[in-house]
Amino acid sequence: MHNPQLNRHGELQHLLTLEGLPKAIINRILDTAASFVSVSDREVKKVPLMRGKSVFNLFFENSTRTRTTFEIASKRLSADVINLNISASSTAKGESLLDTIDNLAAMHADMFVVRHAQSGAPYLIARHLTATGQDHVHVVNAGDGRHAHPTQGLLDMYTIRHYKKDFSNLTVAIVGDILHSRVARSDIHGLTTLGVPEVRAIGPRTLLPGGLEQMGVRVFTDMNEGLKDVDVIIMLRLQNERMTGALLPSAQEYFKSYGLTPERLALAQPDAIVMHPGPMNRGVEIDSAVADGAQAVILPQVTFGIAVRMAVMSMLAAA
Amino acid sequence: MHNPQLNRHGELQHLLTLEGLPKAIINRILDTAASFVSVSDREVKKVPLMRGKSVFNLFFENSTRTRTTFEIASKRLSADVINLNISASSTAKGESLLDTIDNLAAMHADMFVVRHAQSGAPYLIARHLTATGQDHVHVVNAGDGRHAHPTQGLLDMYTIRHYKKDFSNLTVAIVGDILHSRVARSDIHGLTTLGVPEVRAIGPRTLLPGGLEQMGVRVFTDMNEGLKDVDVIIMLRLQNERMTGALLPSAQEYFKSYGLTPERLALAQPDAIVMHPGPMNRGVEIDSAVADGAQAVILPQVTFGIAVRMAVMSMLAAA
Amino acid sequence: MHNPQLNRHGELQHLLTLEGLPKAIINRILDTAASFVSVSDREVKKVPLMRGKSVFNLFFENSTRTRTTFEIASKRLSADVINLNISASSTAKGESLLDTIDNLAAMHADMFVVRHAQSGAPYLIARHLTATGQDHVHVVNAGDGRHAHPTQGLLDMYTIRHYKKDFSNLTVAIVGDILHSRVARSDIHGLTTLGVPEVRAIGPRTLLPGGLEQMGVRVFTDMNEGLKDVDVIIMLRLQNERMTGALLPSAQEYFKSYGLTPERLALAQPDAIVMHPGPMNRGVEIDSAVADGAQAVILPQVTFGIAVRMAVMSMLAAA
Repeated sequence: MHNPQLNRHGELQHLLTLEGLPKAIINRILDTAASFVSVSDREVKKVPLMRGKSVFNLFFENSTRTRTTFEIASKRLSADVINLNISASSTAKGESLLDTIDNLAAMHADMFVVRHAQSGAPYLIARHLTATGQDHVHVVNAGDGRHAHPTQGLLDMYTIRHYKKDFSNLTVAIVGDILHSRVARSDIHGLTTLGVPEVRAIGPRTLLPGGLEQMGVRVFTDMNEGLKDVDVIIMLRLQNERMTGALLPSAQEYFKSYGLTPERLALAQPDAIVMHPGPMNRGVEIDSAVADGAQAVILPQVTFGIAVRMAVMSMLAAA
Repeated sequence: MHNPQLNRHGELQHLLTLEGLPKAIINRILDTAASFVSVSDREVKKVPLMRGKSVFNLFFENSTRTRTTFEIASKRLSADVINLNISASSTAKGESLLDTIDNLAAMHADMFVVRHAQSGAPYLIARHLTATGQDHVHVVNAGDGRHAHPTQGLLDMYTIRHYKKDFSNLTVAIVGDILHSRVARSDIHGLTTLGVPEVRAIGPRTLLPGGLEQMGVRVFTDMNEGLKDVDVIIMLRLQNERMTGALLPSAQEYFKSYGLTPERLALAQPDAIVMHPGPMNRGVEIDSAVADGAQAVILPQVTFGIAVRMAVMSMLAAA
Repeated sequence: MHNPQLNRHGELQHLLTLEGLPKAIINRILDTAASFVSVSDREVKKVPLMRGKSVFNLFFENSTRTRTTFEIASKRLSADVINLNISASSTAKGESLLDTIDNLAAMHADMFVVRHAQSGAPYLIARHLTATGQDHVHVVNAGDGRHAHPTQGLLDMYTIRHYKKDFSNLTVAIVGDILHSRVARSDIHGLTTLGVPEVRAIGPRTLLPGGLEQMGVRVFTDMNEGLKDVDVIIMLRLQNERMTGALLPSAQEYFKSYGLTPERLALAQPDAIVMHPGPMNRGVEIDSAVADGAQAVILPQVTFGIAVRMAVMSMLAAA
């Protein structure tokens, strides 16, 4: 089957998911990102790679943080950025999603950065653009439902590569609400594609999805067991709605069983790094002593995230 | 009487309405727009005509779609754009409209793009700027009440000229809620100024304003009759509030009498084009088979709309 | 004690308050602003001083007007601007203020323009950045609680200097709700630092804070007395909530006692200027005849405000 993310020359046409994305493409994104990390340190942080290109941030679901990272990445590439909070506009007037897309494409858009509460929405948009011959418009999935968050997955890969150099001898643990997490899903696909021999999922049974073993993941419900000797710990944010819902007794209970404390961190390798996609719930999934500690690489993740998004966008724009 | 849209050299000072706008000015806007259509196809879609100019999008009434087209047009002209949703700001603090305008003009604004629910608001602003000697600020009406939507009218003229070349032998039908439509009003003024010999208005009696005949428009309440042999069909959006109000029985009833179906379209000239200002209500005023059919030029209208707005803004900035 | 606004070379590192800001720094800001006033008159109103720099407008409290002035100033300095309405985002997700700040700093922000309902919030942010070695990020206080609004204070100083040349022989009256006014506080600090021999505060006893005399201010509850022979009148906006609250009988009563009418203005020096930070309540604190009269310099204040903000931002960016 044809991979909808690649064009006929095998170049990245859309970024929708890390599932099935060739290892060579992922590596090329990470290599390109490395060149942009230094751009952000320069006096003038701009490169003209996307000058005159129009990037539309189509956020059907609100996310100031993610929207901001894409807005900064676009501006550092010299693109023009248009922010559209779509829930508040055409959809309210009863226009269909694809009519909205066709309209924006007719304005000579070059890229849609799409955030949507519904899994598969960016894929639907990409397929429609291809079906209607609008190949000049590229789609970046900025998070769709519980499905995927590929740029977060890529920045996590970049961070691991930066600190650990080699993926081929790592044990990586993902901890928390795996069930509802598009970040976890994208990380698992990235890690297995890049050859990580052991990926672990740690969480209460109610927050672990089925099928993890088939994805090559070892499942733990006991955190102390799961953290043993790991090289990388990826903490997930516990959504507030889970804490008040039926899936968990309370935030305090959760912290007691799955909060990352200095004591628990000591079970991992001494040089293990601690990651978190943010925003953090201090005292719920992570202790402040760990969040602010020497092993945390949470803020470097943010910095790398800008470079990774610049890499993805500039590669798409050149395809 | 002096035309408030022109300065003493006869150049465009403000764009408020197509009513009374000289044919030569309209043609110059359309010619200028033609040069910008090709800009949007280039690799770098920017021209430096408004570099360093400050454009304020003053939207007293929310309209993401129209605001977006002006924002794109401004950025492709290299202007700086400031989006202001005014209802949420100073007006809430009790400041008068003209105090707000004076304040923004004092920030060395170059252009106000004004959308307002009240007919005449952009005219009021333009007159105030002239009266107070602030001639460096230009006003573009982006839709005021039921009164006018001149850039939509101009992009409709551009579209017709693009497909039909000559206005002097055309029959053009405007279909739907003429009564509440600023688009219809601007189209009628544009068409008559450009010499279209027959302009028709088609709609239920409750949605037809008085005075159409005096504007040189032939009125039809029977759609089949009205569409006979026309060269151009301009469908209007049926606002949701009309469908639930007292003016119409139901959306289904409306579609039965005034929806544009393939059968009805067959009554027009075989090469007739179908236009719509968007967003469309599929199945209410227009059948999907027509909206997506070979005679529809609805998406080209959007593309031309950017070029027309670039033309208007660059001409004003140069005046 | 070390002044947190200055770096170790004595340059402006943050702008948090006019209290304690050295006279030499204030004068340098005003001198720099003078050079930018002419930029705004040029055909191309941009200078490349902040090209590639990222300015974040962090508005924890909504203020379209102030946000707009900083956005324009940033764009005229060629900076990239990101507007963040923080109340609606991460704070809602339970992230702490300083985590948000660290995240944005990790995106290689260069400047935070901070508006916050809580007094001291910009100071807290600046101190945190210094404590964590993030000296590449500069903070501008765009208004915090009742505490300070230093750029408004500076533009008021610029305006007075522009019209009166010399501070050393002036009598300046500030009229209205001094108690709740950060503008008043910043003006008082600016005026005393610049050597104004007589600063007066005029208002009803319920709206006058304690401690004014210790700041070197003469207090008047009778407006006619207070205005006698003054050179500069700074009117304050009466917040709507005061008028309905317990502190004042009614807007009409207030106007009778403290509204600036032409008759009252005649008590001041014949060449006295009238200032107001806007937005004005005409007929509450100021009569329209005065607001639109020959002695009002309210719109020039707005123009100078852009230049003053450009001066502050470019000096910080160069520190």
